[in-house]
Amino acid sequence: MIGEVPNTWVGQEFRSRRLAHEAGVHRPLQAGICGTKKDGAESIVVSGGYKDDEDYGDVIIYTGHGGQDSSNNQVGDQSLEDPGNAALVTSHLEGLPVRVLRGAHNGSRWAPAQGYRYDGLYRVTSYSRKLGIDGFLIWQFRLEAYDDTPHPIQRDALGGEDVGAGNSPAGNEAPERVTSTVQRIVRSSAVKRQVKAWHDNRCQICAVRIEVPGGAYSEGAHMQALGSPHNGPDTTGNVLCLCPNCHVMLDAGAIVIKDDLTVLRGGVEMGPLRTDPRHMLDLSCMRQHRERWQL
Amino acid sequence: MIGEVPNTWVGQEFRSRRLAHEAGVHRPLQAGICGTKKDGAESIVVSGGYKDDEDYGDVIIYTGHGGQDSSNNQVGDQSLEDPGNAALVTSHLEGLPVRVLRGAHNGSRWAPAQGYRYDGLYRVTSYSRKLGIDGFLIWQFRLEAYDDTPHPIQRDALGGEDVGAGNSPAGNEAPERVTSTVQRIVRSSAVKRQVKAWHDNRCQICAVRIEVPGGAYSEGAHMQALGSPHNGPDTTGNVLCLCPNCHVMLDAGAIVIKDDLTVLRGGVEMGPLRTDPRHMLDLSCMRQHRERWQL
Repeated sequence: MIGEVPNTWVGQEFRSRRLAHEAGVHRPLQAGICGTKKDGAESIVVSGGYKDDEDYGDVIIYTGHGGQDSSNNQVGDQSLEDPGNAALVTSHLEGLPVRVLRGAHNGSRWAPAQGYRYDGLYRVTSYSRKLGIDGFLIWQFRLEAYDDTPHPIQRDALGGEDVGAGNSPAGNEAPERVTSTVQRIVRSSAVKRQVKAWHDNRCQICAVRIEVPGGAYSEGAHMQALGSPHNGPDTTGNVLCLCPNCHVMLDAGAIVIKDDLTVLRGGVEMGPLRTDPRHMLDLSCMRQHRERWQL
Repeated sequence: MIGEVPNTWVGQEFRSRRLAHEAGVHRPLQAGICGTKKDGAESIVVSGGYKDDEDYGDVIIYTGHGGQDSSNNQVGDQSLEDPGNAALVTSHLEGLPVRVLRGAHNGSRWAPAQGYRYDGLYRVTSYSRKLGIDGFLIWQFRLEAYDDTPHPIQRDALGGEDVGAGNSPAGNEAPERVTSTVQRIVRSSAVKRQVKAWHDNRCQICAVRIEVPGGAYSEGAHMQALGSPHNGPDTTGNVLCLCPNCHVMLDAGAIVIKDDLTVLRGGVEMGPLRTDPRHMLDLSCMRQHRERWQL
């Protein structure tokens, strides 16, 4: 069951995992990720079990599953072979919505004061690997609330009363089941348009130029991704002009670029990146992207 | 000036084109499209001047410029060389927002009762050519309101009072200037996921299979587009499994498919479409797509 669950609403509270299970919002009683590699992730629980998690309300940096001991210390590397992590990758690749349940825990202004709260649908906008606080490799998934997902309730700094609307069923009619979901969103901007103009819409990696009636089509791709956790700059030095295929591969780490501008695709050298003298590349952004995928 | 104009609001009314011009919402005094091929369309006016227009509120089927005599009869074919039409193509390819101004006219429940009304930002989601009511080739652009664009005001069938909210500046604070805009949205669905599974994410046109860490990526592409004016069915027979590059070219008419499944790209035969015995194709959808681009 991907998407909204009938007879539940955003902001609905559950005293326990069992009650959330019975409502169908998050079916496992223990695991933080519900889903399979084949069908994607149905739901996740954000409850403070992974110290590398970051919660900004509408954006969550969610650490994958695995490698922990019984005290929630990271004692080993995480893998995309883990079924929960593989499920979140599928949700990203297929553009499927993921239900987010937040559990009470310290250190997050977005967590409920007690029990669990269903906070609606998020999409997995990227994922990457990094060295976690405990010194092991972890996978992290960036989840973003859909535009029409209500803002989660924010608490005062440490406990206290819930503020803001959203926790009353009267204020949130049970939404209709979500049937069509965004798979991939590409945003344009003045910075991207400049880069695309310099390269006349020709892909800097594979040299394809997609011609269509009335014009040509390309995409501007940030190497160091915008927003948390990567915080790349929105500058022409951080943007490449790519065809949609190479853009998908760059974003997913199937393509990385070496400091000498050699393109590596699946670890194989594909020749040099195409350049233009007007387009100065920011090597630190290129390196951040590479190291995000190749530790 | 692409996007919102400072000190204006959605629902704002203007007694005349000159007042809309002075506010900067739509700068030309006569032309229905403001913009250039290089920078895209700033704004359009929907005022009943083209009998092939269709207005559904959040979705507008907007006829391009050109080929009319002084009585608004179509007396010749339209062309994408026309600067206004070329501007709308650029808006589509670059994913730029277009301001929509509606003018009073008969036959539309979405038109204001008098004068002009600014109805916010729309994006150009597709364009195509067809034989218009008067028997000449016209170009039509499908514009869709952004998710956060307020619904336009609807009137009773023929004149009468405005109903619904939105025409008061008090209810609509001046929005911030839009700086990032959606270039391309790809939606996934159960139908598309089935087609992608049958083809194991391999493109039916160019045979590329995009592999990324943790999986493979492809897109489901409708041949006969969903929604007005094409009204294609959301069935597996109408969906192809494509790489993003071929998807862009199919949607823009750079690729069409003959009844014998030969792929034509830019008019050149590229060999047969890849098929799978589980995936029955709907030839009428394929033909509708082809005839949309090759009259």
